[in-house]
Amino acid sequence: MSTGRLEAFSDGVFAIAITLLVLEIRLPEGWEEDLGGALLGLWPSYLAYVVTFLLVGMIWMNHHRMFHFIHRTDGLLLALNVLLLMDVAFLPFPTHVLAEALHADHGTQMAAVFYGLVLVIGGIFYNAVWWYSSSGHRHLGGHITPAEARALRFRWGMGPVLYLVATVIGAFSAIGALGFYVLLLVFYMFDMRP
Amino acid sequence: MSTGRLEAFSDGVFAIAITLLVLEIRLPEGWEEDLGGALLGLWPSYLAYVVTFLLVGMIWMNHHRMFHFIHRTDGLLLALNVLLLMDVAFLPFPTHVLAEALHADHGTQMAAVFYGLVLVIGGIFYNAVWWYSSSGHRHLGGHITPAEARALRFRWGMGPVLYLVATVIGAFSAIGALGFYVLLLVFYMFDMRP
Amino acid sequence: MSTGRLEAFSDGVFAIAITLLVLEIRLPEGWEEDLGGALLGLWPSYLAYVVTFLLVGMIWMNHHRMFHFIHRTDGLLLALNVLLLMDVAFLPFPTHVLAEALHADHGTQMAAVFYGLVLVIGGIFYNAVWWYSSSGHRHLGGHITPAEARALRFRWGMGPVLYLVATVIGAFSAIGALGFYVLLLVFYMFDMRP
Amino acid sequence: MSTGRLEAFSDGVFAIAITLLVLEIRLPEGWEEDLGGALLGLWPSYLAYVVTFLLVGMIWMNHHRMFHFIHRTDGLLLALNVLLLMDVAFLPFPTHVLAEALHADHGTQMAAVFYGLVLVIGGIFYNAVWWYSSSGHRHLGGHITPAEARALRFRWGMGPVLYLVATVIGAFSAIGALGFYVLLLVFYMFDMRP
Repeated sequence: MSTGRLEAFSDGVFAIAITLLVLEIRLPEGWEEDLGGALLGLWPSYLAYVVTFLLVGMIWMNHHRMFHFIHRTDGLLLALNVLLLMDVAFLPFPTHVLAEALHADHGTQMAAVFYGLVLVIGGIFYNAVWWYSSSGHRHLGGHITPAEARALRFRWGMGPVLYLVATVIGAFSAIGALGFYVLLLVFYMFDMRP
Repeated sequence: MSTGRLEAFSDGVFAIAITLLVLEIRLPEGWEEDLGGALLGLWPSYLAYVVTFLLVGMIWMNHHRMFHFIHRTDGLLLALNVLLLMDVAFLPFPTHVLAEALHADHGTQMAAVFYGLVLVIGGIFYNAVWWYSSSGHRHLGGHITPAEARALRFRWGMGPVLYLVATVIGAFSAIGALGFYVLLLVFYMFDMRP
Repeated sequence: MSTGRLEAFSDGVFAIAITLLVLEIRLPEGWEEDLGGALLGLWPSYLAYVVTFLLVGMIWMNHHRMFHFIHRTDGLLLALNVLLLMDVAFLPFPTHVLAEALHADHGTQMAAVFYGLVLVIGGIFYNAVWWYSSSGHRHLGGHITPAEARALRFRWGMGPVLYLVATVIGAFSAIGALGFYVLLLVFYMFDMRP
Repeated sequence: MSTGRLEAFSDGVFAIAITLLVLEIRLPEGWEEDLGGALLGLWPSYLAYVVTFLLVGMIWMNHHRMFHFIHRTDGLLLALNVLLLMDVAFLPFPTHVLAEALHADHGTQMAAVFYGLVLVIGGIFYNAVWWYSSSGHRHLGGHITPAEARALRFRWGMGPVLYLVATVIGAFSAIGALGFYVLLLVFYMFDMRP
């Protein structure tokens, strides 16, 4: 299979998963008495929506960059990419769990750990795609050198490590974990500038 | 990243967000006694569906036109576009809130203000993409002159201003705000003709 | 805008609307006592799913054929196409209403009329796109003659008429209307063969 | 219609159906008392999600390979492919039923049979597309020989047979059927390696 079709299919799954996030936001029962209060009370849903939307956007941009360098596919690469997509498409659920826990103020640490672990697993699949494709320059084309490929291994390898840190923080404080994700996003945005 | 992939991803998010709007329309409890009445009683949902569908359609067409002129991307442009998509993908929720409030005849003004503010924020991100891309003709190609780019700045800059007007009207009357959106859409359609 | 992007966006809306239909099928309360009976009792949902899926598939194939002949777009053509998409994206709701009414055996005629009217309106928008594009050969290319374009006007013009017939049948019997849609689909499939 | 558009539309339906699976996973009532237990108790949903995601991913990869060989379409091929997509887009429902039955520990065998039958029907439509396209080399291009096409008939023809085996196993044990699907997936992944 060409990488073109693989990318198009992956883009579709990313775009759909990111857009389904909004379906997890619902008006609570009894909003009729105070709609303003109900809308303000949904801040955990907005926060979880924004953080997950931007994290998935970031993963999508990196996925793009990765496939800019990958020129060939084979069965194992396809399988690893499907595992990555399976994790990304699952994200609306832990996002919902995190928002619900923050809203109910019950089980917030558990929810933050669950959310973090899903990101860690996704990060591992992401790196598996890159390690497999780049080891021995297996599926890479001419516009990346082996040294640059190794540098990206290190850089992208930091992803699951940082998500694991967020998970550990989440075991103590869900808000702390969310703050850490926001820091990651801000750092990534500055880093992204040429 | 090429603008081609960016546009394809954006198109995907626009198409999905626009199509998810229908999921917010639900038969009320007890419809079995009078289905005709229940279907007529859903007029706020139909109205909110039509207005939001056409507004998103209009934003999509403008987004297209904007990227017809933009020839290069960089990290900040990607980030600003992701923020715009985050706002567009959020629209099914304020649409649902507006329809629910009109149906319950409770909190309609609050719902119209919420709906309007989401549009204002989207308009600001939209204009940020254009200001950043067009300042100093940074990312524009040859088939638009600096004077034309400035004219579009003014024209598109009217978007969030008009949405703010709708928000203020909504603080007094949700139906008034919806009427204003319909006027905007009619005006835009005539304006669109060559 | 090129017709290429317009078609890609339209394809996206068709594909999403067709795939969202399944979300309207839900297990009823109390299924635990008799899952087999509950699954059989959902036959109205399956029937409405199959008929709507195939009707949307048919409209999508015709839409394709239409844009095979249309070579240019303008604002009014875009607007008419958005109105058509708005109708197509709305179809999951009348499909749900029809299945619910058949399941509850209440308001089935009203539901069939509602379903039929949404198809009639979609058929009118579809034909508006074609009449506008083909009048005076306005937006057509060289591989269709004016006489062929007129023949398609007549052929596609039958669509809303037949949907109106189904709506009238539905005012007497929802099952009768569904049978009529099945006949249309079978006829269309045979007609489609070279 | 070109096979390019047909593939793009099919890819869209596959990507959307696969991403909608997550919407079937919901927190149970009363999770506030023990979120950890509630998340663990959702194992049937996770299992059904993973198996269905990977099965659809596998069908999608095969679909791709099939259209790599098919060079032309006609009305009947389009119709058979729409029937296949109708089955794929339906899969979120039997997945939900299977997860619910495992969770409630009621009707698990019935749910496994229902799930299996939907796969069997999909497999039949899949093979119908291939038999029709490959009989007499009707729609195939030059880079596959008639002998290779016949080999694929046999290979892909095994699909619905194996799904039928899983359905029969499911009539005795839903967990047994799921184990059989996992075996199929593992076997397929190894088989896929060059």
